[in-house]
Amino acid sequence: MPDRTEIDALIELMAKLPGLGPRSARRAVLHLIRKRALLLQPLADVMGQVATSARECLNCGNVGTADICPICADDARGNGQICVVEDVADLWAMERSGVFKGRYHVLGGTLSALDSIGPEELRIPQLVTRIDAEGVSEVILALNATVDGQTTAHYIADQLETRVTLTSLAQGVPIGGELDYLDDGTITAALNARKRV
Amino acid sequence: MPDRTEIDALIELMAKLPGLGPRSARRAVLHLIRKRALLLQPLADVMGQVATSARECLNCGNVGTADICPICADDARGNGQICVVEDVADLWAMERSGVFKGRYHVLGGTLSALDSIGPEELRIPQLVTRIDAEGVSEVILALNATVDGQTTAHYIADQLETRVTLTSLAQGVPIGGELDYLDDGTITAALNARKRV
Repeated sequence: MPDRTEIDALIELMAKLPGLGPRSARRAVLHLIRKRALLLQPLADVMGQVATSARECLNCGNVGTADICPICADDARGNGQICVVEDVADLWAMERSGVFKGRYHVLGGTLSALDSIGPEELRIPQLVTRIDAEGVSEVILALNATVDGQTTAHYIADQLETRVTLTSLAQGVPIGGELDYLDDGTITAALNARKRV
Repeated sequence: MPDRTEIDALIELMAKLPGLGPRSARRAVLHLIRKRALLLQPLADVMGQVATSARECLNCGNVGTADICPICADDARGNGQICVVEDVADLWAMERSGVFKGRYHVLGGTLSALDSIGPEELRIPQLVTRIDAEGVSEVILALNATVDGQTTAHYIADQLETRVTLTSLAQGVPIGGELDYLDDGTITAALNARKRV
């Protein structure tokens, strides 16, 4: 069917998105074609814009449309706190909570000897530079509670120990979480960090 | 964050795709931005092309880039068989099996008094016209085994009864299917249509 190649190409590309397989990509493309004017054309336009304008913040690694992201450009957020996260998705999750008023540093992954990802690949030197340049007093390590995440947290702690206050996110029972569904490690951590009521 | 609006707009549009919610849309957009050159730009280009070129076949309702789809344009497929399906996705599923050599007729839904979808909305008059125009001898009803699907099948059967041979897909145990996971209706149908070994 030589005539269906554009649509086939679209299905093939859509199937490369995380969370979509060949089947759901076909379903998505049919949905897009049905909503040509309302969804497909706007999506094509916005994707084109983002493809040319999206870039990483040179300072913190956040994704945005400027060389310096709005958070780094905002003087009010230069309060001496830097929250270190693995990923832009983690930064967005922190921002949605709206509770953190400082700046971020996106590592872009975790240390991994197997994948030969060392400190240079993770912007750790840039983090060390920022400590002095931005007068940072506290570094909050908000890395995932995985083996690689904790290895990376320890490495960063070693680098910064003498220069700033180091903290990490509290571990415990999530709000609305049911004990029955929690893993043993979380329950252990929550019990060890128990507070007087 | 006025600077992130293009990316926000992209996330919002992506979240409208079937199978994606706000969370997976954010994940998909970060993936797209990371693969700007390899995925985001090609996707934008192909979406733009499809948005302008995609159309429904005037004859059968299949989706393609021409007014008459390749299947309807192919003389070899005018073998007197028309397979009636609810949806383009169903047509594609039939085509993947590669076993059907005739043409299709896409209804675009099922009869539904509640949603006031009548025969005109479903190209049923066009189907009746095609019977004579294409010298059709057999109409295969490949509608879903839902109440609405079967109501629609009965309606079409009533319209065409005297003019063509009417058949429908066999019902039974799927290849590789385990009895334990099948619903009662399928088991009943498979038992009623049992064959001598």
